[in-house]
Amino acid sequence: MHREKKKATMQFLLEVVDILTNYVKKTFDRSTKVLDFHHPHQLLEGMEGFNLELSDQPESLEQILVDCRDTLKYGVRTGHPRFFNQLSSGLDIIGLAGEWLTSTANTNMFTYEIAPVFVLMEQLTLKKMREMIGWPAGEGDGLFSPGGAISNMYSVMIARYKYFPEVKTKGMSAAPRLVLFTSEHSHYSIKKAGAALGFGTDNVILLSTDERGRVIPADLEAKILDVKQKGYVPLFVNATAGSTVYGAFDPINEIADICEKYNLWLHVDGAWGGGLLMSRKHRHKLNGVERANSVTWNPHKMMGVPLQCSAILVREKGILAGCNSMCAGYLFQPDKQYDVTYDTGDKAIQCGRHVDIFKFWLMWKAKGTIGFEQHIDKCLDLSQYLYNKINNREGFQMVFDGPQHTNVCFWYIPPSLRGMSDSEERREKLHRVAPKIKAMMMESGTTMVGYQPQGNKVNFFRMVVSNAAVTQSDIDFLVDEIERLGQDL
Amino acid sequence: MHREKKKATMQFLLEVVDILTNYVKKTFDRSTKVLDFHHPHQLLEGMEGFNLELSDQPESLEQILVDCRDTLKYGVRTGHPRFFNQLSSGLDIIGLAGEWLTSTANTNMFTYEIAPVFVLMEQLTLKKMREMIGWPAGEGDGLFSPGGAISNMYSVMIARYKYFPEVKTKGMSAAPRLVLFTSEHSHYSIKKAGAALGFGTDNVILLSTDERGRVIPADLEAKILDVKQKGYVPLFVNATAGSTVYGAFDPINEIADICEKYNLWLHVDGAWGGGLLMSRKHRHKLNGVERANSVTWNPHKMMGVPLQCSAILVREKGILAGCNSMCAGYLFQPDKQYDVTYDTGDKAIQCGRHVDIFKFWLMWKAKGTIGFEQHIDKCLDLSQYLYNKINNREGFQMVFDGPQHTNVCFWYIPPSLRGMSDSEERREKLHRVAPKIKAMMMESGTTMVGYQPQGNKVNFFRMVVSNAAVTQSDIDFLVDEIERLGQDL
Repeated sequence: MHREKKKATMQFLLEVVDILTNYVKKTFDRSTKVLDFHHPHQLLEGMEGFNLELSDQPESLEQILVDCRDTLKYGVRTGHPRFFNQLSSGLDIIGLAGEWLTSTANTNMFTYEIAPVFVLMEQLTLKKMREMIGWPAGEGDGLFSPGGAISNMYSVMIARYKYFPEVKTKGMSAAPRLVLFTSEHSHYSIKKAGAALGFGTDNVILLSTDERGRVIPADLEAKILDVKQKGYVPLFVNATAGSTVYGAFDPINEIADICEKYNLWLHVDGAWGGGLLMSRKHRHKLNGVERANSVTWNPHKMMGVPLQCSAILVREKGILAGCNSMCAGYLFQPDKQYDVTYDTGDKAIQCGRHVDIFKFWLMWKAKGTIGFEQHIDKCLDLSQYLYNKINNREGFQMVFDGPQHTNVCFWYIPPSLRGMSDSEERREKLHRVAPKIKAMMMESGTTMVGYQPQGNKVNFFRMVVSNAAVTQSDIDFLVDEIERLGQDL
Repeated sequence: MHREKKKATMQFLLEVVDILTNYVKKTFDRSTKVLDFHHPHQLLEGMEGFNLELSDQPESLEQILVDCRDTLKYGVRTGHPRFFNQLSSGLDIIGLAGEWLTSTANTNMFTYEIAPVFVLMEQLTLKKMREMIGWPAGEGDGLFSPGGAISNMYSVMIARYKYFPEVKTKGMSAAPRLVLFTSEHSHYSIKKAGAALGFGTDNVILLSTDERGRVIPADLEAKILDVKQKGYVPLFVNATAGSTVYGAFDPINEIADICEKYNLWLHVDGAWGGGLLMSRKHRHKLNGVERANSVTWNPHKMMGVPLQCSAILVREKGILAGCNSMCAGYLFQPDKQYDVTYDTGDKAIQCGRHVDIFKFWLMWKAKGTIGFEQHIDKCLDLSQYLYNKINNREGFQMVFDGPQHTNVCFWYIPPSLRGMSDSEERREKLHRVAPKIKAMMMESGTTMVGYQPQGNKVNFFRMVVSNAAVTQSDIDFLVDEIERLGQDL
């Protein structure tokens, strides 16, 4: 690169850093909006000076800086202390620095050869996570994958490989009709895995739950027996540790008893709830997780690690490689000068694999295990605070008793509906309340919180806290804002 | 956050930026080593002041800065102009700035709601890519996925859905025995997809290639007929545009004729070669790509976009959603205030999806299409330069005639083997030459280039150029270095 040009591009990079650090500072400033909402057609038509179209000719570095500013301006501040919309929120500065370093290193996890430090960090971190799960001496295997859905997909793949290894070469026709079980409240990724991997969604049986969204073990056993009676083969049970909407924890020990009795693979989807293993106060909610054959755990959710960071952890060593290896000689040469067991690529369904470990490792170094514990305990305390505040408050109705995770689910009942007795009309009206309030929130840009229906329950708000920057005043603000926006509906 | 602590963490972030910009500058400095090699046990035992183990207690920010420096120190400079080891190399500063912004925005592609700008950028960029493929008006669909292997997996999934949609609900038992075809030189991800998705690797038929690694169409037709005669159903053909080792381009038009004749899905794996569509000079190598049903194209390879950035492009609209949607009401609410067709999450097998688009979009803005074209033409010119330099040079033997992509494959024959006639002994000795030279390269840290065997050919070097910083002098250096390290073997 010519010296002049080099200088200009380094200067450009520093100017982007300036834009970014300003953005970060403003994100933590409550007087900043969470978002500046525009409809798709508005952004597509082009805002002043911001044109998304790509062209044949280059633009100036000045214009590129403007584009960077505008991209942030019209985006959503997921690190804002009043952004409660997703399970992943917050903006940890150490994690952010880690991700910037990762981008700068710009390498790939498939071999030790080109990612020596990251490969070892991944190995040590996964071992530490397995120790926290409670597997003897942290033995086992694992990988960071591109999100919880893929981690869950891995669990189904390796369960199938464990019981019917010939499927790898001969396909599903080499196995009997296999059935997967997961709760009606579980994440849809188990069903997606069933479709993708060739089981078919009809063979993903949904389990009934109690009023707090937890699997009823007797229902699992009844459904296993039913499936066996039909001549099919029960293969796999997913127990959710922290469901998406209710934050429910399935009773892992009781489910594990049934899995042992019928010789089924037990997977625990702790994408959302796995972080609680870091907390001495809350880890009991995952009691029995050490009996699982595999566990999904996303540090990018409850632990505040930047996106993406999801681990699939496996109790039996070697099975990931057995399931996925294709021994491609052009990538994984056996005749290298170092110990090639550190080349992890052939265990994955990916070839190239993004470095997701470093930011997490760096945050763990900076916080220590106790730092994560404090973060988690604080978030759960805040949820309890919200629950206590709105339970029995006029105009609020809880969807279930007591928070199980940081999820607090509730209806806001506008004054106009408070006197009405339950009827189809009232249900229809109530169903439209949360979307309306949410739309107004987004348009005013003050806060964001999720809503959804569940089963036969009409739309309700799902509040979650995973951002370290949230305080009680932000919870108060959310409640006030819902009342302000909803009072005339 | 308390003001004091906030100030300290922002200060920390700027110090990390300082470390990173110094790293970037040094990466482009040829007097810097490509790597400082250590064995796994050395790094695990702990280098001075660098300990990979995680602990319960936090470390100081000063130590975290040291950890950042050491992580880079013991890593590999994939952006160095003498790093030729992978298809992905280089360090584009605009792309890097884009990735830093992406990490700062820390959001997720699944809904317009939380990633409005990124969702639109993805949509526009995919359309532009489809136009370059040559699909009418750029119509169709697509997604950025976590790498070429997953993109290829999508192609197999949607092909199956197109012909046997009932597999989604009923599983593979609802379909006859389905067969996939791909070249013996193709990427192993097609086989991995066959295993994962329940086809079985026995049903992934490898096609024979000519001496330059290109599929022989007559072999495809013969194998289709053979499969049909056995009563199985040919489903899918993968044509590789830029194979991993040889850089070969399968004859897409001839393969498309056969796919049309037998009604098979045609996928083009252009993970490596797709970038050539940007070059008026070289795009003819992909002639016929517009007849494909789906295309994989990784901008993170030939186009120098930072990792990860891989697109799966599909000619038929709606089929990605049809194949993968599960309509999870808790994530994809139909009753939002904006046009929810912009919520892309349900098309993916992932739930959360990393923002891979922004850095690519930003680079495209900054370079224009012509900038990518110049980059590609330059890399291919450099490969031709290397080929011309070592073809007929004493001690070098080419694996095939003429570069097809930037891949140049060759044996280095040390003086001790030059007089020997072909024999098992010579072959065994030659097989050990490339690994030995590679090990010495890594230990001296001067350069890195890949090697592998292929079929019955013993280990040879595979040189590739995708880094914009490479010059002819770097090519000269590589050749000199191989001769220097290999002369006494």
